[in-house]
Amino acid sequence: MQTLPGFRDFFPDDCARRNYILDTWRAVARRYGFTEYDGPVVESLALYEKKSGGELVGQLFTVGAVADPGAAKGALRPEMTPTLARMVAARERDFKKPMKWFSVPSCFRHERQQRGRLREFYQLNVDILGEASPAADAELIAVLVDTLRAFALTERDFVVRLSSRTAWQQFFIQNAKRADGAALTAEDEYEFFQIVDKAERSSPEKTDAALAKFGLNAAQVLAFMRSKEPTAELAPILADLAARGLGAFVEVDYAIVRGLAYYTGVVFEVFDRAKTERALAGGGRYDGLLALMSDGKVNMPALGFGMGDVVLANMIADTPAAKAQLEAWLARERSCEVYVVIAKEELRPQALALVQELREAGHRVDFPLTSAKVGKQFQNAENLGARRAVVIGEEWPQMKVKTLATREEVLIARENLVSQLG
Amino acid sequence: MQTLPGFRDFFPDDCARRNYILDTWRAVARRYGFTEYDGPVVESLALYEKKSGGELVGQLFTVGAVADPGAAKGALRPEMTPTLARMVAARERDFKKPMKWFSVPSCFRHERQQRGRLREFYQLNVDILGEASPAADAELIAVLVDTLRAFALTERDFVVRLSSRTAWQQFFIQNAKRADGAALTAEDEYEFFQIVDKAERSSPEKTDAALAKFGLNAAQVLAFMRSKEPTAELAPILADLAARGLGAFVEVDYAIVRGLAYYTGVVFEVFDRAKTERALAGGGRYDGLLALMSDGKVNMPALGFGMGDVVLANMIADTPAAKAQLEAWLARERSCEVYVVIAKEELRPQALALVQELREAGHRVDFPLTSAKVGKQFQNAENLGARRAVVIGEEWPQMKVKTLATREEVLIARENLVSQLG
Repeated sequence: MQTLPGFRDFFPDDCARRNYILDTWRAVARRYGFTEYDGPVVESLALYEKKSGGELVGQLFTVGAVADPGAAKGALRPEMTPTLARMVAARERDFKKPMKWFSVPSCFRHERQQRGRLREFYQLNVDILGEASPAADAELIAVLVDTLRAFALTERDFVVRLSSRTAWQQFFIQNAKRADGAALTAEDEYEFFQIVDKAERSSPEKTDAALAKFGLNAAQVLAFMRSKEPTAELAPILADLAARGLGAFVEVDYAIVRGLAYYTGVVFEVFDRAKTERALAGGGRYDGLLALMSDGKVNMPALGFGMGDVVLANMIADTPAAKAQLEAWLARERSCEVYVVIAKEELRPQALALVQELREAGHRVDFPLTSAKVGKQFQNAENLGARRAVVIGEEWPQMKVKTLATREEVLIARENLVSQLG
Repeated sequence: MQTLPGFRDFFPDDCARRNYILDTWRAVARRYGFTEYDGPVVESLALYEKKSGGELVGQLFTVGAVADPGAAKGALRPEMTPTLARMVAARERDFKKPMKWFSVPSCFRHERQQRGRLREFYQLNVDILGEASPAADAELIAVLVDTLRAFALTERDFVVRLSSRTAWQQFFIQNAKRADGAALTAEDEYEFFQIVDKAERSSPEKTDAALAKFGLNAAQVLAFMRSKEPTAELAPILADLAARGLGAFVEVDYAIVRGLAYYTGVVFEVFDRAKTERALAGGGRYDGLLALMSDGKVNMPALGFGMGDVVLANMIADTPAAKAQLEAWLARERSCEVYVVIAKEELRPQALALVQELREAGHRVDFPLTSAKVGKQFQNAENLGARRAVVIGEEWPQMKVKTLATREEVLIARENLVSQLG
């Protein structure tokens, strides 16, 4: 019996590495004043069919019930934004603006197996709702940059590639003409974004062919893509980030368009500088989504990003400083601080009472469940990564307290032990 | 658009209450030297069809894929033990015994809607593997008791009802005779356990009818159920718990049998003293499950318990001391510690640099994204629960630092601010 393809077991060491990522995500988001929310793992299928757009719908996992095969179908969430938009549309009036919310959901996509892609993964989601100012875009990009910096990644390791659908929209309106003479539609615009999204990876011939219906060609698109001049929309965001000392982490790159249908303005993706990995994170503005989700009842500017754990974990493993910081964290996380050695088995009841008291004082404590030789108990303490061993034996009601790394030993009376262990 | 029935949104306040439970679960398990693991949310359907038994299989959610309707079916995990057994069977040799493992998975059951039951819930799972001694049963029950005590629940609020399938097995072997004269089978035994499990809730007539095929009656079963005498198996567990000072939290109660097929020895459930709620937790020994999961390759004693978040949250809400502790925790968890007031908009770049520095020093910091009146900014700071406001204005490069609760104000120079804010 194994896991299904693309799903993971988290044995203790894997689980600690996962928790390092989730804990760090949470810590940085909270430093930025974001507050955590979450939603259900299973949503109605209709939520995604209507809102996600693009390739995500084809990657959905569906959910049914053994007991109720005819029931309305559910889906495992492939991303968090539709859930967020649904929640905010339902209770928007209860929250002061701007709303700064984050979440660390597990998400599910039925994708082809490849490096950096799993079918169940964790994704940090950070969103600001109710603020149209570019200061919100800068705040969002700053928390993104500092999240990656918290893993000991630097501007030599990653870069935020900043772009704008508004810029591409203006390009499209100014330059496109449908071959059949009809007016350009929102669908045309989204189709154009998808062609631009693929242009760097496609041949110019293929891009030419796709663009022909709009009277455009690959050369025009690629030329605009390579211009690095910030638009009037992007300039204040860059100035804000520079004031924070984060300018070196961001570059204008109009090659970024993003796949999902709901983005409206600024968009960005984060890549490793070597560009050997998939995107570390991506996001942007989705000012129209809340109105769409609420049938026009709630209309609010919004923006956010998602960062998955899989590419990030690869990047940490491949970056020496980041890996060293992870290893130091893992060493601190060992499961045992104090090991109580029972050298005289008849003192077990006294040992149990001491173990209880130490745990109540907040120490991580372990001890032998059954009678064992003292040498084996010390071996056990070492295996568990304990810092100190407390020996209950001949000296009782005093105890030897041994620091395992230095082998230093002191004798402490029972009534002073808990306070002296600090 | 709403959640599907039995699924929850966690708006920020709900999410903080959830995190209080998950964080406390983790902290206590770690104090006891347990190490965290996790598995996939989706497992193969076959894992549960073969191992869980009882009503759980009928409550499974199935998982398919839009893109691959013919693919092997998955299921959302309804409980964690089959995943744990699968993982341990696969890599048993990599871990020293006893293994003390815990997990806080979300689990999924397609149950009828009722108080204390949801279709997606969190469940603390704590297990000890590779130790047959009753000291392991006592260690497990101790961590269960201290988990509930960590929520400020006391022996007046809950009790662990301790029982044993071994005791019921002996009762069955000694007293049962099949009406058709055939030998008693393992299936008979499990059927008997299920009758005993329902005996307190059923009428004696119904129990009599169910027991008739084994030559037993309700009076016999109920008499044994009401005896409080610990068996030789339970006595050392009770002595161990008494040595820890936890004796008052446990009572022998043979009415507890547990529904799942895989339990073999000691079993227990935790109830509120008033018995107005469903069980808070339940568990026991499942010494045969690892052999079953590994086709006999791994044979190891094991025991564990599960504790759901839904009944626990109800109990915390209904117990004044537990509720007060939760509220105090929520107050400390507010999203903002320091609010930077920008009293002169032209100093925004300097404010951004300061915000950055404070966050890098580990403070939870917020500030106005757009220009706003100073009074409104202070209002904002209060709304976010900030402790202090730092005012960037006329005094620059000095700043007024105001403690919001006391309205005390001090003037601090820019270069000293981060260190003096502590």
